[in-house]
Amino acid sequence: MQGLMMNMPLTITSIMRHAEKVFPNVEIVSVTHDNPRHRYTYREAFTRVRQLAQALKQLGVKSNDCIGTLAWNDYRHFEIYYAVSCSGMICHTINPRLFGDQVNYIINHAEDKWLFIDPGFLPLIEQLHPQLGGVKGYVILTDEEHMPDTSLPNAYCYESLLAPQETSFNWPDLDEGRASGICYTSGTTGNPKGVMYSHRSTVLHCYASVMPDAFGLSVRDVLMPVVPMFHVNAWGCPYSAAIVGAKLVMPGGKMGDGETLQALIEEEGVTVSAGVPTVWLALLKYLQDSDKKVESLKKVLVGGSACPFTIVEEFKNKHDVHVQAAWGMTETSPVGALNVFSPDMDGLSQEEKQALIVKPGRPLFGIELKIVDAENHELPWDGKAYGSLKVRGPWVSSSYLKLDNSPAYDDDGWFETGDVATIDQNGFMQVTDRTKDVIKSGGEWISSIELENVAVDHPEIAEAAVIGIPHPKWSERPMLVAVKVSGAEVTEEDMIAWYEGKVAKWCIPDSVLFINELPHTATGKLHKLTLRDWYKAGKLNKI
Amino acid sequence: MQGLMMNMPLTITSIMRHAEKVFPNVEIVSVTHDNPRHRYTYREAFTRVRQLAQALKQLGVKSNDCIGTLAWNDYRHFEIYYAVSCSGMICHTINPRLFGDQVNYIINHAEDKWLFIDPGFLPLIEQLHPQLGGVKGYVILTDEEHMPDTSLPNAYCYESLLAPQETSFNWPDLDEGRASGICYTSGTTGNPKGVMYSHRSTVLHCYASVMPDAFGLSVRDVLMPVVPMFHVNAWGCPYSAAIVGAKLVMPGGKMGDGETLQALIEEEGVTVSAGVPTVWLALLKYLQDSDKKVESLKKVLVGGSACPFTIVEEFKNKHDVHVQAAWGMTETSPVGALNVFSPDMDGLSQEEKQALIVKPGRPLFGIELKIVDAENHELPWDGKAYGSLKVRGPWVSSSYLKLDNSPAYDDDGWFETGDVATIDQNGFMQVTDRTKDVIKSGGEWISSIELENVAVDHPEIAEAAVIGIPHPKWSERPMLVAVKVSGAEVTEEDMIAWYEGKVAKWCIPDSVLFINELPHTATGKLHKLTLRDWYKAGKLNKI
Repeated sequence: MQGLMMNMPLTITSIMRHAEKVFPNVEIVSVTHDNPRHRYTYREAFTRVRQLAQALKQLGVKSNDCIGTLAWNDYRHFEIYYAVSCSGMICHTINPRLFGDQVNYIINHAEDKWLFIDPGFLPLIEQLHPQLGGVKGYVILTDEEHMPDTSLPNAYCYESLLAPQETSFNWPDLDEGRASGICYTSGTTGNPKGVMYSHRSTVLHCYASVMPDAFGLSVRDVLMPVVPMFHVNAWGCPYSAAIVGAKLVMPGGKMGDGETLQALIEEEGVTVSAGVPTVWLALLKYLQDSDKKVESLKKVLVGGSACPFTIVEEFKNKHDVHVQAAWGMTETSPVGALNVFSPDMDGLSQEEKQALIVKPGRPLFGIELKIVDAENHELPWDGKAYGSLKVRGPWVSSSYLKLDNSPAYDDDGWFETGDVATIDQNGFMQVTDRTKDVIKSGGEWISSIELENVAVDHPEIAEAAVIGIPHPKWSERPMLVAVKVSGAEVTEEDMIAWYEGKVAKWCIPDSVLFINELPHTATGKLHKLTLRDWYKAGKLNKI
Repeated sequence: MQGLMMNMPLTITSIMRHAEKVFPNVEIVSVTHDNPRHRYTYREAFTRVRQLAQALKQLGVKSNDCIGTLAWNDYRHFEIYYAVSCSGMICHTINPRLFGDQVNYIINHAEDKWLFIDPGFLPLIEQLHPQLGGVKGYVILTDEEHMPDTSLPNAYCYESLLAPQETSFNWPDLDEGRASGICYTSGTTGNPKGVMYSHRSTVLHCYASVMPDAFGLSVRDVLMPVVPMFHVNAWGCPYSAAIVGAKLVMPGGKMGDGETLQALIEEEGVTVSAGVPTVWLALLKYLQDSDKKVESLKKVLVGGSACPFTIVEEFKNKHDVHVQAAWGMTETSPVGALNVFSPDMDGLSQEEKQALIVKPGRPLFGIELKIVDAENHELPWDGKAYGSLKVRGPWVSSSYLKLDNSPAYDDDGWFETGDVATIDQNGFMQVTDRTKDVIKSGGEWISSIELENVAVDHPEIAEAAVIGIPHPKWSERPMLVAVKVSGAEVTEEDMIAWYEGKVAKWCIPDSVLFINELPHTATGKLHKLTLRDWYKAGKLNKI
């Protein structure tokens, strides 16, 4: 029997309506290429959103068309988010830091019909234009005064496009399952893969992420996302601020700049922020060097990669800011788990707390996690067993765009994260390795990351990678490949002895190889695939 | 185009799974008739929930069957909530304070198959039993030791039923639109009307109600609902505590007892509570008389009827507790709007703040409000215009059980609350009257409540009611019917003069009638219908 409750769809349109009606005077502050401090209110924002929706109609954009953006975090990008999705079109946020051929691939793969571009990304798109046959035109995110010369045909100035439009718009009724946006995720191999969000997934992620133990957003908060709007919708911040009426501060292209971040925090009264460890290291360094403060700041969410303990410690001790580790992926919208301490953990020792505090944490209500062994049997939540991490929930992707039967989606409806993790009895999850990097030895799994961490703790080791090499009896055994610090004289025997007592005996690498340089990806991550290729090709021994 | 996100249903089963896996050691503390302080953990609770599901199966209860409860807030009622709804059955919480013939009506109307009864309500049900032909049996919520003698056939002892059951259960996959529970709402006329919640509406209400500006529930909170579990699911508390892992404290039948509430707050560390004004007046009186404290308490939500300013003031000044007015109805699950101050209101004068702070407030994201005039035209949000309050959203009922075409649901999909309200430019809604009590004079509406409030401010008036009486030119004109304080000599002319300058001239009552006693409902509310009947029958003048 069905309940007798209203069948109201969960749509981004409802977020927009709510923010404009209930929080009309709350501000959105942006740093843009043409204005160091633009400010207006939600009411003004959504008035312009309606003008943009009129402009899209005038340009001939159709329902379900994809609109690509190459833009930083600012109010114009915010306007595009809402106007596109609420019109029944799809907002495709493109990462301009990808290689040119990847940008080219995803624009064509998503079949973007129009591109909205910050002037700074014009050279990239001018270069790619000949290959972008499906793109009908370009809109440059600036005003007439700052409109650059461009070789692109059909290039419009954003402000000139909006100015003459009516400020009313008749928003269509949308099904909640309807596509609202696309974000591509790029791994170390193959083409980027498209995750397509729906209105429903966006709204549910929004509800979950404002919860007190997640972002904890209130109408009294000032939220500054220091994660780009082309990275999983800036972790949902442009939506979550709007549902609670929080003031939104967007640092434009200045996200890595400690000075700008500090000035925005102090001058705009930022209380909550979110970003990857790198930006916090930059901010903390600036604070250290300048002896400046961030007094309004209460909470910082750290995700994207493991949260170094130094960030937690320095924010807490010097600035009284609570740092919360979080875990998520493009495929999980992204917030999936957060570091949440219960009162029953107050009695833990400092050491135990320190170990817990950098764990990305416990699943948010709506997200289910499990870890499984190689035979897909679920493993216990005891903090010791580790297996492939799988996830499911209403804001987890069900397949990649035009890429059916991806092995990342199992037959039971779970998404395989590609990570290996442990989960303890209170649901604290910790990623211990990437599935493809784990070493399978005699039916047991050995974490390559754990062995690398022990290696780099050695004073004479600069960088380390551990890979599995074939073994007739054990299937695989770990080998340490390391770069010495300049002038060091550490030997293979020294390193093997170094592991004694630090890891289980059977986990200690069988061999150690010193090389001059380890292979890295374009974004600076260790590229173990290349290392394994070198090994297979017999090149590794020769270096 | 549909998004590519997992189609995971929003179910109460997912709340249960989350709480048990992520917060296994968090406590649920109850006052029951057979134990002054029962305590166990979420893990233990949900183990027993599975045993109860097994027992229901053994009793032959079928999918979609309705299970009625007559019980106070405690752990056994909590177990029934989950076992019934997650098994695909429907949990019908019955208000035992209703008149016997109303209880009889709703048990038969909902077609309850089994009743779960606190021993205290046994006499009521024994008396009704001959008329409850559809009820197959009864379960008494106690253990063997406390099992009372009863004339009811097929009466089981709850604990004896659970004890032999397996602790595992294979929960069915449920559609999110599926019915999960029923609560009847009783007006002043006609039979009670059944609101049927769904799994989806329950989960969405849960997400919304834990938001920082609503209950603001975190894993560090201790929540004590002082609103019965037969009143709109205790405002959702048994679910919302579980999604965040808050400790839950349930006062059983002791909700009106200030001493019990104070002891529970202090001894269990309650941080957040919720209830109607009456319970807070009782608690505040006890605190005053006993000179005791409620030091752990941070926040109290007040709903059900208008929040008196004295409650806000006394909690704030004497106990440093933030009181938040809230608005909702059985038809809205119930939380619809809450009093939320934005930073831009900090600059208001004390007088302006005082006027705002008792308003039930701004709609929660998900809920849409509007006010309309007699021709269903939407009225502005200016804090002045007032009209019929309508509401819609995914946790608002779409029709009453077996009562299609109720005039409460309009053709555009809005629910008519039956209230008259104003909404200001920041979305602060205030109920000014019941639609049926408003006086329609010359095309304008006059609030009967406003006129009554002015009247009772007069030192010689004990109680007042204002009703509309027919008028040939103005359609209706207000008449004040008042009870004098003992020995007072106030006259009709005095009262008319009293209104001068306090309300608009055209709102001042045309006539005043003093009577000895005003008619009231069983729950003590002014019953204007009877007053109007008296007037029509010519009885009013004679008193």
